[in-house]
Amino acid sequence: MDLDSILLPVKSDLDMVEKRLEEYLYSDSPLIFQVAQYLLERKGKRLRPALVLLSFGENGDSRKHQALDAAIAIELIHTATLLHDDVIDQSATRRGKESINYRWSNLVSVLMGDYLLAKAFKILVQTKIPSLLNAISRATERVSIGELLQIQERGNHDLTEDVYLRIISDKTASLFSVACQSGAIARGGEENVQKVYQRYGEDFGISFQIIDDLLDLIGDKEKTGKELGNDLQEGKITLPLIYALASSEDGTRDKILKLLEEGFKPGHFIEVRAFVEKEGGVDYSRRRASDFGKSALEVISGLKASEHKNSLTQLVDFILTREK
Amino acid sequence: MDLDSILLPVKSDLDMVEKRLEEYLYSDSPLIFQVAQYLLERKGKRLRPALVLLSFGENGDSRKHQALDAAIAIELIHTATLLHDDVIDQSATRRGKESINYRWSNLVSVLMGDYLLAKAFKILVQTKIPSLLNAISRATERVSIGELLQIQERGNHDLTEDVYLRIISDKTASLFSVACQSGAIARGGEENVQKVYQRYGEDFGISFQIIDDLLDLIGDKEKTGKELGNDLQEGKITLPLIYALASSEDGTRDKILKLLEEGFKPGHFIEVRAFVEKEGGVDYSRRRASDFGKSALEVISGLKASEHKNSLTQLVDFILTREK
Repeated sequence: MDLDSILLPVKSDLDMVEKRLEEYLYSDSPLIFQVAQYLLERKGKRLRPALVLLSFGENGDSRKHQALDAAIAIELIHTATLLHDDVIDQSATRRGKESINYRWSNLVSVLMGDYLLAKAFKILVQTKIPSLLNAISRATERVSIGELLQIQERGNHDLTEDVYLRIISDKTASLFSVACQSGAIARGGEENVQKVYQRYGEDFGISFQIIDDLLDLIGDKEKTGKELGNDLQEGKITLPLIYALASSEDGTRDKILKLLEEGFKPGHFIEVRAFVEKEGGVDYSRRRASDFGKSALEVISGLKASEHKNSLTQLVDFILTREK
Repeated sequence: MDLDSILLPVKSDLDMVEKRLEEYLYSDSPLIFQVAQYLLERKGKRLRPALVLLSFGENGDSRKHQALDAAIAIELIHTATLLHDDVIDQSATRRGKESINYRWSNLVSVLMGDYLLAKAFKILVQTKIPSLLNAISRATERVSIGELLQIQERGNHDLTEDVYLRIISDKTASLFSVACQSGAIARGGEENVQKVYQRYGEDFGISFQIIDDLLDLIGDKEKTGKELGNDLQEGKITLPLIYALASSEDGTRDKILKLLEEGFKPGHFIEVRAFVEKEGGVDYSRRRASDFGKSALEVISGLKASEHKNSLTQLVDFILTREK
């Protein structure tokens, strides 16, 4: 099932998100306006806003306004993290990335990200829902904790699955989780209901990131629109490789570790990928992503049937089978 | 008068700020902990927290807790902007900055800044004072608007004093202004009283930044602890130069513009500085800083006498005559 069909129950709300985003990002500063336009044109799947609105559900229209603002704020926070992730590290520069033609400079990426973060908080403050502010500021903190842990573990070839899961839970699942929770909060849902959505979002997010990491290894460049092997190039060890390294025999393992320590070369990537596939790392990652997907479905199984719940169910299948 | 003496009325509160900052920045992540320790050890003057507490005043102890948290949050936001300002631009890298030995990478600076921003908002949310959240999120937005405007105008040798003032008002005065306003808000001050503190902080901040820019040109490296000429090197045109360029004769002006366009060289800096001094740019900047200082004093002249008001008065003189 394609994403548009899945998101049909919240289509008009998502259109509203887009319209309001444009309004919020309007600026009489030419630089801000240009970068904002660029971001709006290259919009992603808007999964986080969709999750806010699906979790908000059909009732509770009186607080639709706040749900929309929460959706926008979370998307702005997500966009800010993308801008900041793009900042070129000195070490990355040394690895030869500086030749890539960036549209704007490091500093513009950073400051524009800060601008979006500030904007997000300004919008959130307007919702006047303290628990929403609490939840989203906590999630934003988790994102940076996860990103910093990831940097700390860069190049650590002994990374365990546990630490990997902690990283992706903090850096990625946090925003998915708070998106779902925010929908429930805006609707005025009780705490145990909020918890259900929050846990669905957490499992959903972990599942999403495992697939994301897998696509960086075995994806189709034509479909993802991204070069493969970015994670390896940046020294990020992800689940398929963690599993393969742990399952392989000492000799093979040592050979691969030696390749990894030599730094990234295209030929190496192909060899590492073949190793991961042979050792079952790809299958294992799909299985783990699917485990978390099943857990997400299990969590919401008790919710009353609705087209919104249907969409949440279908979304899990969508992210597990996505090719981009 | 030295800063410690001026801040005597809020000394114990500032100690409390330091203590709580340490607590808030404690982390079981080694990377976060190390960077946080580094930041705590190299703490600045803590002028913004001091302004929050001086504006909070003596009464209103029931909300001292919130005033302290506002002080901490604003200092964290300020620290985050410092971390983000440090990010090396590709263009700066090209100008030869990459050889400087940085303790951490670009990416760590960015992510740690984000972590501090998120922390700041989490702390603010806890204060449960909506007007405080409103004011501080708006000020944070202004900081990035000012920084982005500054980047946009980089290398523009026709920059006017008006646009310069807009830049420093947004990027610098905003946080000073909201610091003073926050003190008044936390105390439960009426809106017109809040306005008085806010305007004092705004003028104070502009005055502060004019002197800051002046010190980058004519400061004593031994005292400031910074190399001179950073602004010129980064293509930032500040008030002394704006004035000098506008007052000089065409021939001299063209010669200096030619130097500026050639890019930064140490010999150039000495020549540009001599030009600025000769054309009265230094005196003019001192005069303008002093104008804003006087305006700040004028704004609070109606406030009831107190030792806190005394300190606010003395602080203006302090920042105008500071050598670091």
